[in-house]
Amino acid sequence: MNIAIDAMGGDHAPQNIVAGAVAAARSNSSLSRLYLVGDQARVEAELNAHGSRPDSIEVVHATEVIEMHDAPVQAVRRKKDSSMTRAIDLVKQGAADAVVSAGNTGALLTACQLKLRNLAGVDRPGLAVLMPTPKNDYVLLDGGANLEPRPAHLVQYAVMGSLYARHILGYPNPRVAVFSIGTEDMKGNELTLEAHRLLKTTNLNFVGNIDGHDLFANSADVIVTDAFVGNAVLKACESTARLVSTWLKQEMRRNPLRMLGGLLALGAFRALKRKADPDEYGGAVLLGINGTCIKAHGASSAHAIKHAIRIATEFVETQFNEHIIEEIQQLHDNAQDHQPPKPAVEASA
Amino acid sequence: MNIAIDAMGGDHAPQNIVAGAVAAARSNSSLSRLYLVGDQARVEAELNAHGSRPDSIEVVHATEVIEMHDAPVQAVRRKKDSSMTRAIDLVKQGAADAVVSAGNTGALLTACQLKLRNLAGVDRPGLAVLMPTPKNDYVLLDGGANLEPRPAHLVQYAVMGSLYARHILGYPNPRVAVFSIGTEDMKGNELTLEAHRLLKTTNLNFVGNIDGHDLFANSADVIVTDAFVGNAVLKACESTARLVSTWLKQEMRRNPLRMLGGLLALGAFRALKRKADPDEYGGAVLLGINGTCIKAHGASSAHAIKHAIRIATEFVETQFNEHIIEEIQQLHDNAQDHQPPKPAVEASA
Repeated sequence: MNIAIDAMGGDHAPQNIVAGAVAAARSNSSLSRLYLVGDQARVEAELNAHGSRPDSIEVVHATEVIEMHDAPVQAVRRKKDSSMTRAIDLVKQGAADAVVSAGNTGALLTACQLKLRNLAGVDRPGLAVLMPTPKNDYVLLDGGANLEPRPAHLVQYAVMGSLYARHILGYPNPRVAVFSIGTEDMKGNELTLEAHRLLKTTNLNFVGNIDGHDLFANSADVIVTDAFVGNAVLKACESTARLVSTWLKQEMRRNPLRMLGGLLALGAFRALKRKADPDEYGGAVLLGINGTCIKAHGASSAHAIKHAIRIATEFVETQFNEHIIEEIQQLHDNAQDHQPPKPAVEASA
Repeated sequence: MNIAIDAMGGDHAPQNIVAGAVAAARSNSSLSRLYLVGDQARVEAELNAHGSRPDSIEVVHATEVIEMHDAPVQAVRRKKDSSMTRAIDLVKQGAADAVVSAGNTGALLTACQLKLRNLAGVDRPGLAVLMPTPKNDYVLLDGGANLEPRPAHLVQYAVMGSLYARHILGYPNPRVAVFSIGTEDMKGNELTLEAHRLLKTTNLNFVGNIDGHDLFANSADVIVTDAFVGNAVLKACESTARLVSTWLKQEMRRNPLRMLGGLLALGAFRALKRKADPDEYGGAVLLGINGTCIKAHGASSAHAIKHAIRIATEFVETQFNEHIIEEIQQLHDNAQDHQPPKPAVEASA
């Protein structure tokens, strides 16, 4: 299996990206080729810092970098020799099975959709994000690809998210929910109410609406929403975790007794930090494109990059896209079965 | 000043509601009348538990209760003698200046809009929620009233939210932001992009977009959004705070050293709990109706109810609705000034 890596994308590139790729190459023998795409001199310099170079690693030179603040569509159009777009080109050409990037999310989604195109039957790709709860991990999508989806798009997300939960997370019968403003069937906006109605007609294990209070309550294995709400919710969760941590630190430093207590319980705080760390959740996956694309967190550590590469291999190994094509075809067939039959004879005037 | 209180609304009604009202009556001499609306026998029984009854408290009997799970519109239509709708009736009749309820949010918003009507010039009322950050409190709206707003509604929310920040929170020149999926001007959906454009033409101190990462970063004093996103974000924040707390407790109990540390730092955890406690933020305020309506959290303690009553008095004392009418009028005048001038002579064909 061959993976293309955007070596220049992310807040700590190329350092953390190269370190993560080296770690992945050393630990996973099924990786026959890891393309590190980016400024050759800088990537080579990073590689040299890691001792003997794994045989599977190959540097592919690209002269440009899409920056985090670049406007996605313009960046993809203008920076034709960027590390990100060149890495995607390797997938398009068949040289790589998957691409991993910690760079500009909007640019990555745009470039993948433009260059790799959608899978047969898929209307809109969706960014699937893995969310933690005390009991299970679950898939939330769309985390950023499609800002104004139609209800039918959410149904396709439900199909693709269920496949993620089944084939990657190993849940035999994933529960699917629509993200709304309350659990009752009649709560929601036009989009979610219609998506709810459509999901009831599918063969999915649809459990109805959930709302923000249920995000960590193990209420579903797949939660579908539009990208605006998905983005808002994901970022709100990250912000709140940071706020609570800031407040706790402030309170812990307020007197010596608390400081001592904090020192004794340091292991607990470190464990908490790991649990709440987006790095541990590795990468978001763009589902529905003709290829495999993993978006790692912008602030990814080497560990997170290694984890994202592992996720990429899992998607390729399970022939994930074949499952999507098959299930989306079934969805379309099923939808036709559910259409009201045409009258055999038109009513005469 | 007279306040009507829905004594039967909320998870701990009438107990906490009555206790909060008694505490408010005892501490605030400007409250000439506090109407406790609900089942007379149950409310009287609660009152008797608090010793001598403050003179300002008057029980108003209502036979029905709108439950938390009732469908809002049907509940308001059918339960005409509910504690919630009777309390609002007291405002409508002029007997009370404001209503406070910890009951069914949807029903409260519906009943207030039906019975009290909008203030002159206001298209849609919005639910304003006070949010904490380490540095400032700020106003987020709409927290639940208007699921499919138009861009112009968000502009009215910005006006009303600014007045809240200025007259209640005391910020001289409140910064207004649109909640979006990124801080750049071009990021957003149709609603936020157009609201952004309109807000630039107003006299408000508009600072542009913020996203979920900025929720606790003191980036704005007023954040406007639609009720779907507002509800999603508020609940996501609450859920995350609970999750972090659950994880921390689990980790703290994992070995005796951590437990000892936890005990020594107990004051810090308690302080944190208070900071993150929705009770401390008292109540959400429905802005734009012909009256004052405070929605207390469903799980409100007596302390939260007392706080919500105090908030109600502040809105009445500052003649808040007069400010809204004036500023919304100015907004309309300003919008007319900004319309492109009609050509004096039509172009001849």
